[in-house]
Amino acid sequence: MEESAFPRRVSALKEKLRALSCDTIWVIQPENRRYLSGFRAEDSQINESSGSLLITQSHCLLVTDSRYATEAEAEAVHFQVHILKEGFVAGFCEAIGSIGTRRLGFEESFVTCALHRELLERINQMGLSVDLVPLEGIVEDMREAKDEGEIEIIEASADLISGVLDELIPWLKPGIKEKDVAWQIECLAREAGAEGMAFPPIVASGPNSALPHAVPTEREIQLGEPVILDVGVKLDGYCSDMTRTVFLGEPEDGFKKIYNTVRSAQLAALREIRPGVATDHPDATARKVIGDAGFGEYFGHGLGHGVGLATHERPRLSPLRPSELKQGSVVTVEPGIYIPGRGGVRLEEMVVVESDGPRIITRNSHFYDFDR
Amino acid sequence: MEESAFPRRVSALKEKLRALSCDTIWVIQPENRRYLSGFRAEDSQINESSGSLLITQSHCLLVTDSRYATEAEAEAVHFQVHILKEGFVAGFCEAIGSIGTRRLGFEESFVTCALHRELLERINQMGLSVDLVPLEGIVEDMREAKDEGEIEIIEASADLISGVLDELIPWLKPGIKEKDVAWQIECLAREAGAEGMAFPPIVASGPNSALPHAVPTEREIQLGEPVILDVGVKLDGYCSDMTRTVFLGEPEDGFKKIYNTVRSAQLAALREIRPGVATDHPDATARKVIGDAGFGEYFGHGLGHGVGLATHERPRLSPLRPSELKQGSVVTVEPGIYIPGRGGVRLEEMVVVESDGPRIITRNSHFYDFDR
Repeated sequence: MEESAFPRRVSALKEKLRALSCDTIWVIQPENRRYLSGFRAEDSQINESSGSLLITQSHCLLVTDSRYATEAEAEAVHFQVHILKEGFVAGFCEAIGSIGTRRLGFEESFVTCALHRELLERINQMGLSVDLVPLEGIVEDMREAKDEGEIEIIEASADLISGVLDELIPWLKPGIKEKDVAWQIECLAREAGAEGMAFPPIVASGPNSALPHAVPTEREIQLGEPVILDVGVKLDGYCSDMTRTVFLGEPEDGFKKIYNTVRSAQLAALREIRPGVATDHPDATARKVIGDAGFGEYFGHGLGHGVGLATHERPRLSPLRPSELKQGSVVTVEPGIYIPGRGGVRLEEMVVVESDGPRIITRNSHFYDFDR
Repeated sequence: MEESAFPRRVSALKEKLRALSCDTIWVIQPENRRYLSGFRAEDSQINESSGSLLITQSHCLLVTDSRYATEAEAEAVHFQVHILKEGFVAGFCEAIGSIGTRRLGFEESFVTCALHRELLERINQMGLSVDLVPLEGIVEDMREAKDEGEIEIIEASADLISGVLDELIPWLKPGIKEKDVAWQIECLAREAGAEGMAFPPIVASGPNSALPHAVPTEREIQLGEPVILDVGVKLDGYCSDMTRTVFLGEPEDGFKKIYNTVRSAQLAALREIRPGVATDHPDATARKVIGDAGFGEYFGHGLGHGVGLATHERPRLSPLRPSELKQGSVVTVEPGIYIPGRGGVRLEEMVVVESDGPRIITRNSHFYDFDR
């Protein structure tokens, strides 16, 4: 990421702040924090935060503790690093006191009830006059349309995982366990330079492929059955996410039709991806193809989601809460058909929403073209 | 884990429930959920929960969505699985309505402000008469003293990571990058049967070893400098956590004394581990040894922490908020000395608190005994 991205984003946030009913924005959500500051630390769990940003029209503070001091100074170069001495709540309240906060906007979906209560108690105890103002999706909205630097990194991340599948798929043989395939994917990804997996690889064979959320098991993959490979890596913080369904040998009865249907639904939905389209429209297009083929009840999830610093982020391509698709968003297009007890097929591409339509950034490979 | 563990734990929780000002306990924290029900699913992030438990004197419900239905039925065999149809808040409120909840105890440190607000709104909208009652540490307290089945698994987890270090340490050579050492640790752990890492391995060499929270870098490890290896795996859900500091060749000036001091502090603290001791006492013992050697200002963190389903859990062995050490707890004893810009030494053992004292379950190897 070029250095200038961070001050540009902070300026944009300050513009948004003018329209909000608060004078300070507190950012604790890890991807939002990284997006604005460049600070890379992750949180090991919700009550083990590695840092908070406090942004006003005149201050940019990164509040963290001594364990992260060195990284914070090196990474969040446009922020003043404030090291907590004696626990989060006391030090944090001191920090908001020092910058004159009166109305503190906080991320309602990421602050726990306990932390909220402890802050209020401490604020009262210190005699500060500070109100807590819940905010929702302010930075997430900014992250929805990617800038050029981000798109470059996401493309590299998608390219890396595409290469992993290029190496993996010819290596598959009947009798290999799902778990061993998953581990092979991790090894190939690391060798190719991934900093880690975006999520644990899904390797789901036979009846397991009917579970959209399958965890790899000891099951050995077999000839003729669907094997879903849903994988993604992180590269410089940015995620990729792609799915192929493969068959070793000739597909079992019925799966050619299922596969062709999913692929047709995907291609139809891809044609509807462009700026300004309602996010439920490509979903409806795919759903219609699948429904017309008689599999309507077997496509239970949404068509896709945004990908960036998080694997799942805005926008959501589903029938729920539609919004307008934005130029510069990166989204997945991943229809599926899942027959309980038998198996399923899912195909997933990543696309950049460009002014003249979609640009697919996962490698266009490992698709079958079965006779109809 | 033997099957009978789960109903026994639920019964113990129901006993505790009698003394609380609520009729239903809602458990959403992933390790607490697994501890009580056997349901293994993890949460990918705080606002993507894979399930909630609802426990009353007469009901045990696991509320989840269709993606997890199969696993939930298979794993949480003592719970009735309730599948959400149309979003969490609506389905959850329907569930608490169906079991007659009037006062719903919730985990204040794991429920976000947004979820709390949405629940209250829905409860009002449905005309239910339900109060939300914040709870803190109810299940965490139960998890503090482990039962026999848990101790067996934790021992196996500690044994596995000990074996990984036995293979790794002779393989180290000057010029290998920290990142490559970390990846080798992951590979050895998987080959040895770990289901995953308990946390990303820490491999910190030279000046990086002065950062207690170091992330592996491209730095090549060198002769004579300290190399901290802080590693742990998950086995059947249970974590291990151990640290060795190694030197390739003769340690640089001053590090023999630092090493000897840390090891003396560790041995002195271990002698103070037994049921009933205040948790700040072994910490003070180690701190005194380090202080007497002139390094008092360079031991910034607490002495140790409980280990179980989470890498960091109760009790905390530190000067803060002391409690009584319980028989059956599994804790780390990990003093360290960190000289900024130069390097550090940390040594970490895992011990079971038994009636007659500590039983060390990490393998007693890779310690130096430098001349004084």
